[in-house]
Amino acid sequence: MIDQVSLPETRSRILFAAMELFWEKGYQSTSIADLLKRAGLHSGSLYHVFPGKQDVLLAVLDLYHDGIDAMLLTPVWKDIADPVERVFALLAKYRELIVQTECTYGCPIGSLALELHEPDPPVRSRLMANFSAWVAAIERCLVDAGPRLPHRLDRRALASFVLTTMEGGVMLARTYRDVALFDTAVGQLRAYFDRLLDEARAVPASRKPKRT
Amino acid sequence: MIDQVSLPETRSRILFAAMELFWEKGYQSTSIADLLKRAGLHSGSLYHVFPGKQDVLLAVLDLYHDGIDAMLLTPVWKDIADPVERVFALLAKYRELIVQTECTYGCPIGSLALELHEPDPPVRSRLMANFSAWVAAIERCLVDAGPRLPHRLDRRALASFVLTTMEGGVMLARTYRDVALFDTAVGQLRAYFDRLLDEARAVPASRKPKRT
Repeated sequence: MIDQVSLPETRSRILFAAMELFWEKGYQSTSIADLLKRAGLHSGSLYHVFPGKQDVLLAVLDLYHDGIDAMLLTPVWKDIADPVERVFALLAKYRELIVQTECTYGCPIGSLALELHEPDPPVRSRLMANFSAWVAAIERCLVDAGPRLPHRLDRRALASFVLTTMEGGVMLARTYRDVALFDTAVGQLRAYFDRLLDEARAVPASRKPKRT
Repeated sequence: MIDQVSLPETRSRILFAAMELFWEKGYQSTSIADLLKRAGLHSGSLYHVFPGKQDVLLAVLDLYHDGIDAMLLTPVWKDIADPVERVFALLAKYRELIVQTECTYGCPIGSLALELHEPDPPVRSRLMANFSAWVAAIERCLVDAGPRLPHRLDRRALASFVLTTMEGGVMLARTYRDVALFDTAVGQLRAYFDRLLDEARAVPASRKPKRT
């Protein structure tokens, strides 16, 4: 079995094993031996495609980044056109992951961001790129919401706050093993959004877009 | 030097070394040897006071919990009477810690909550107790704010959301090595608070407390 595995196949097996293991037990607790065992490969295989464990991490972070649309956003948003509801649908996806994992879910990027106490610059730049891609997707929703949100609202700042809420909510739900902690955070964010939507609704009619 | 160290002194040296090391490099990356070296103790010392590394962790978490007033809240709040400003003064303290550590700051409790992928029940119960004590302190501020906040506001939920904001903001500031990410989160929380305060101000005068 071992020698017939092609290099691209070896690479993808290692990457998917690493995604699972880094998420399940953390980067530092995952050994090269764990990776090979999960991937069903022998010990020489890794070095043909990744010089070391950090190279696996870099490739995993690139995979999350490059896959954000296909793996996360497109499936979550396929039946939702309303840009504000897209924000909450994405948060609802995290709720689903929390429930599915019996409240042990951790955001893979957020967990690595706190687990790695002194990440090397290439690791940190990829963690940033992942957060930035997530925030940019939310910012697009908020821009698409147009005049439904206050004109002067900093949409980038609110998008970043949505990420803060998700990450903090996931952390608390995981610690308390109770999705209610996540629901509380999202509920407060929703209450803030409701006020912003009300505010925009209250501006003079002349400043609103025409309605049919 | 070694044998003259009393048991209580040994215990406190180990605890303070552990607080530093778990915070600097994480729990899993800290070895017993690291603890002893930092504490300036010899290898037999630990076992006289702590059977294992997890026992050190439990004691550290108890210390954070029992010290929340003396180590954190009392110094931060000593010159601030306004309960709403107390909330933001506590967040400003975290900002100070982020700046002092050149944006490498991590909340010791939040970092452990994500670092430990399957914490044993006694560890997790102490992480929860720490979060709960922090949230309870904020909730007291929000209760003390009385009619300045909307009557129907769930003050416990908002207090929990303040923690979510702090934890998410610290995570992002640390990842981007930029305190601006924390400022953005706190700025959005402040914008939400401003709206809540405005709302309470707008209720009919008959429902407001008497003013002089």
